[in-house]
Amino acid sequence: MSEERLRRVRDRVRSFPDFPEPGVLFRDISPLLKDPVAFGALIDLLEDHVRASFPQIDFIAGLDSRGFLIGPPLAQRLGIGFVPVRKKGKLPGPTESVTYNLEYGKAELEIQSDAVEPGQKVVIVDDLLATGGTMRAACELLRRLEAEILECLVVIELKALKGSEKLSSIPFHALLQYD
Amino acid sequence: MSEERLRRVRDRVRSFPDFPEPGVLFRDISPLLKDPVAFGALIDLLEDHVRASFPQIDFIAGLDSRGFLIGPPLAQRLGIGFVPVRKKGKLPGPTESVTYNLEYGKAELEIQSDAVEPGQKVVIVDDLLATGGTMRAACELLRRLEAEILECLVVIELKALKGSEKLSSIPFHALLQYD
Repeated sequence: MSEERLRRVRDRVRSFPDFPEPGVLFRDISPLLKDPVAFGALIDLLEDHVRASFPQIDFIAGLDSRGFLIGPPLAQRLGIGFVPVRKKGKLPGPTESVTYNLEYGKAELEIQSDAVEPGQKVVIVDDLLATGGTMRAACELLRRLEAEILECLVVIELKALKGSEKLSSIPFHALLQYD
Repeated sequence: MSEERLRRVRDRVRSFPDFPEPGVLFRDISPLLKDPVAFGALIDLLEDHVRASFPQIDFIAGLDSRGFLIGPPLAQRLGIGFVPVRKKGKLPGPTESVTYNLEYGKAELEIQSDAVEPGQKVVIVDDLLATGGTMRAACELLRRLEAEILECLVVIELKALKGSEKLSSIPFHALLQYD
């Protein structure tokens, strides 16, 4: 059952060479979003994983912007709330922000200061883990709010980029892995 | 029932003056995302509205990036697929793109050329309609793909900005309206 669902999800990820730049093979989840059965299977798999791994959880946090596609439906299934982690300048009110390195240049990520209470248990979701820089920055933000980060959870891991090593001691799980 | 749900949603929208710039009152849906009952009520209301209005519908299209928070859970409820409309440079493969004016400067919006087939019926969703420039650009993209746009659907309309007038003949619906 789980294998069948995983096959359904994997069949709806397509690849584009040399995007967004030469040498990069881009994994595109658009066909997955477009197929309601496959997308439902994805949310089923994520729900099953979270329920089995974390009987106690307060929030799903999701990364701007493809984590926004996955986080809210997953949170609804689990009956819990969703917390957005956004690019700089998008969130009103008091925020925590962190600057991190991209391949070229820097980026800044923010979370609202009242997004979670100290000790609340959070799983951070995104569509894909590449170099891991954005995910690590999101962990830093949640740590500053004294959240307990249960796991970083993604649909796709690009293993060759070794992003999960950047997350050090934080548990990490990917449904699909590509070399 | 519907009034109770609407009250629940409205109670979870908060306002921040002078964000992102002086004179603007920002409507923040973060508390709505964080409350699973209120967020569920939001998706209930959107689902009821779409089912009652459009017995035939092929896709929900959603705007980068807060439309991504609402589109996929709504599409799942309706048992249909989701199509992302994104900021420039984010979508691989052949795309249609359109440039539109912002208050200061220009922005560009894209859709994958194979996102929908001619004649397919689409509702476009976003969290909020302000000046309507981005929504109008999204309509232009879907028109180029020869989709039938059933409606532009948002959670919040800022009426004073008269964005819905920019959508000319396309049906428009907002759950909540603010002056």
